[in-house]
Amino acid sequence: MKTVSENRSFGGMQGVYSHESSACSCEMTFGLFLPEEARHVPVPVLWYLSGLTCTHDNAMTKAGAQAWAAQEGIALVFPDTSPRGEGVANDDAYDLGQGAGFYVNATQAPWAPHFRMWDYIAEELPALIGSEFAIDMDRQAITGHSMGGHGALTLAMTLKDRFVSASAFAPIANPTQSDWGTKQLGAYLGDDRAAWQKHDSSLLMIEHGFDGPVLVDQGTSDQFLDLLKPETLAEAMVKRRQDGVFRMQKGYDHSYFFISTFMEEHVAFHAEHLYA
Amino acid sequence: MKTVSENRSFGGMQGVYSHESSACSCEMTFGLFLPEEARHVPVPVLWYLSGLTCTHDNAMTKAGAQAWAAQEGIALVFPDTSPRGEGVANDDAYDLGQGAGFYVNATQAPWAPHFRMWDYIAEELPALIGSEFAIDMDRQAITGHSMGGHGALTLAMTLKDRFVSASAFAPIANPTQSDWGTKQLGAYLGDDRAAWQKHDSSLLMIEHGFDGPVLVDQGTSDQFLDLLKPETLAEAMVKRRQDGVFRMQKGYDHSYFFISTFMEEHVAFHAEHLYA
Repeated sequence: MKTVSENRSFGGMQGVYSHESSACSCEMTFGLFLPEEARHVPVPVLWYLSGLTCTHDNAMTKAGAQAWAAQEGIALVFPDTSPRGEGVANDDAYDLGQGAGFYVNATQAPWAPHFRMWDYIAEELPALIGSEFAIDMDRQAITGHSMGGHGALTLAMTLKDRFVSASAFAPIANPTQSDWGTKQLGAYLGDDRAAWQKHDSSLLMIEHGFDGPVLVDQGTSDQFLDLLKPETLAEAMVKRRQDGVFRMQKGYDHSYFFISTFMEEHVAFHAEHLYA
Repeated sequence: MKTVSENRSFGGMQGVYSHESSACSCEMTFGLFLPEEARHVPVPVLWYLSGLTCTHDNAMTKAGAQAWAAQEGIALVFPDTSPRGEGVANDDAYDLGQGAGFYVNATQAPWAPHFRMWDYIAEELPALIGSEFAIDMDRQAITGHSMGGHGALTLAMTLKDRFVSASAFAPIANPTQSDWGTKQLGAYLGDDRAAWQKHDSSLLMIEHGFDGPVLVDQGTSDQFLDLLKPETLAEAMVKRRQDGVFRMQKGYDHSYFFISTFMEEHVAFHAEHLYA
């Protein structure tokens, strides 16, 4: 693991690190915020999965999460959204290939050898940060935005007992029924729609639900409402009798101005359960 | 004036606007955050002047100021750092020309016709925002980072009775004695060092001081300490018996991770005086 940068932030440290990923067969970069408490004791961790086109950097610099994580004594991890590099397949579209890993393990050419973001987030990166930093891996929570909200919810519902709480900002909520989903799931997983269903949080919500509490925020002025399909997830949460809150936030759009506005409440929500 | 974008943020609105500037003879862009209160009554305003290489956008997206401005009921204005465009002079260096206006009125070719950032910030932009938005121009305060800290302090000390309070993050504090200063002041103002002295906050502090309170934060691990010369300003503040606080912040560097960490305290400091 190499240190790319470390900047003091809110009494703690915002680091950026890179490492050779076996899951993705390329060098991967991630951001990690450690609050001051981590100098003395292992701290709980909140995962933040980012959306289409983002790297590890966007949320780390624009979501304003460090202020609240420092206050609560929680680490934040900001993974990249896909494998990257010259030897990694790509597409001219912003929503396929590099920057658009969709948190799945690709089975189809040309994506299969590198695009294994599910294994990277579910297995490899937790093992790495658990061994390299003062993080208590028995206390994890997860959130994300857009494609990252999709990733957060699907990982939370699938990895039983991994996360104590799950939240999302404007998640891609029903990808098997949206152009943000059918395109990527088709490319990465092929035509077998049964494989797609494991990566649709509305379907997983109906089938499994999540054992902990769920918080979802969605702006009413989001320019991508037709692609996100929040109503399907809201309906599924209620049908499931899921312990959870789905909030429509009047006038907010899909941007980091929306995310940063509600970040304090998401961090506090997770902190309540991480420190329960 | 044209609306470039408007995003709902912390109950208020983060806008970006452009206009034909007479001071700079080109189109200029600025960011403006209005808290919810501005729907009903004119609110006080805090100016944030940015540093070298920045546009209006950097602080608006990375400094985390909107959270605190919303809490205090204060507008934020984020001007650009120089004139821009194809017809505007430039230099290959990051610290001269576009992105490096240094908050002066250039008198020398090729800069003179456009590089009039002093007049833009002191006269034109206040008149524009005072007429177009619900801002109480009798209650203004100013802050900034690096080159923008230099701009904030020099404007505050020169424009008597304009600002109730002034602060800075890692300001270029003694530009007449630094490579961050002699290069730009020489290029924009020529060889007459008497003209430079009006743009050196350490010299102005000795000569005038500031009628209101001053807050300065400087990281001890700032990679540009030799260029910023904070010791000269700290000495001048004490010699002047200036109402003010100069804080060395252990381990912090020159980045937005430093700025965002202390933004809450700067906004609260200004709010105390804007609402006095």
